[in-house]
Amino acid sequence: MRIRNIKNADSLIYESSYIIKNYKDYKNKFNEVIFRNDNPIHLEIGMGKGNFIIDMAKNNPNINFIGLEKYSSITLRALKKLKDLKLPNLRIINCDALELSDIFGREISTIYLNFSDPWPKKRHHKRRLTSDVFLKIYNEICKENIIIQKTDNIDLFEGSIISLSNYGYKIVDISLDLWNTDKTYSETEYERKFRNQGVKINYLKAIKK
Amino acid sequence: MRIRNIKNADSLIYESSYIIKNYKDYKNKFNEVIFRNDNPIHLEIGMGKGNFIIDMAKNNPNINFIGLEKYSSITLRALKKLKDLKLPNLRIINCDALELSDIFGREISTIYLNFSDPWPKKRHHKRRLTSDVFLKIYNEICKENIIIQKTDNIDLFEGSIISLSNYGYKIVDISLDLWNTDKTYSETEYERKFRNQGVKINYLKAIKK
Repeated sequence: MRIRNIKNADSLIYESSYIIKNYKDYKNKFNEVIFRNDNPIHLEIGMGKGNFIIDMAKNNPNINFIGLEKYSSITLRALKKLKDLKLPNLRIINCDALELSDIFGREISTIYLNFSDPWPKKRHHKRRLTSDVFLKIYNEICKENIIIQKTDNIDLFEGSIISLSNYGYKIVDISLDLWNTDKTYSETEYERKFRNQGVKINYLKAIKK
Repeated sequence: MRIRNIKNADSLIYESSYIIKNYKDYKNKFNEVIFRNDNPIHLEIGMGKGNFIIDMAKNNPNINFIGLEKYSSITLRALKKLKDLKLPNLRIINCDALELSDIFGREISTIYLNFSDPWPKKRHHKRRLTSDVFLKIYNEICKENIIIQKTDNIDLFEGSIISLSNYGYKIVDISLDLWNTDKTYSETEYERKFRNQGVKINYLKAIKK
């Protein structure tokens, strides 16, 4: 995503009640302290401008959603969309995914990776959100280990299948052309653009027992 | 493949020295009796007119190849291509894949599934060569459990990934556009036609330990 820097975004985001500021204070307590219920927690890593997770939170009131975004300027744009919405089952954290194991205990049920950075150069593949570096982190914070990925990038998708498979995940659902199926999902901003351009969306759901 | 019936094909195929007639007589003895060496045995199920396996046999003299084809008219066309070739590392069997566990012991290293029938209707999915019906059979005849699949059919490919993954195979290599990679493989007749038409070829390699 092209990032348009917004002045003071770092501090402006904390004006929203959706943001969790001291996000390392709630390890193993997100259900108890933040959401105050026992519903499963789903995490989107790299939520961007938030379309997907806001839509998911609206449509699934019995699931708790947390959106992660590392750029404060982008986080701010998602928070603006939330300004007049009341979604008690949604919270946002502005941080890097590498911090995840400092934030959560084994309390996440499902991880969404939507249109993640493909890091095309081989020497950068470790930075992909489906590299073994991150799968190890997810393993530490997930109690159910479900990963749902959507991407237009074929190279990232191929790499994800191999990486997930090698790490012990089973691919339980897959589509090489998501919009040509009867599956319905909340859309990201990217996805809407791609669909309008006729770009095919790859989708997979992987589970590790 | 559209099948043009050839009169007497059922008996004509047995004029070739490449064909194994009493193919149920060599269980666990294919290396000893048929190939007279200890090289690994690779099997193509549904070899069609044989381009792929003939080319593979030419290029890999230290691997033994067996091509399976259930239609005698098609088998005959492959045998005609072999008429003037001397390939001691290749044999052909005219039979149905459901017979495989009666033919082989645990003596196969790699199975190739090239452009297999996609059986598009859900009620026919069990007939696909990557359904659990067949994966169970492969498990009985393989000592290494390597499956290499190529197909233009997206629905078959998606189904194969789920089926293989569910059966305990790891996807160790994959491409959603084989001809756009630096991988080189022997081509089937279908593949050549598809490549000329610009149809994308899906490829995967799966291993079960």
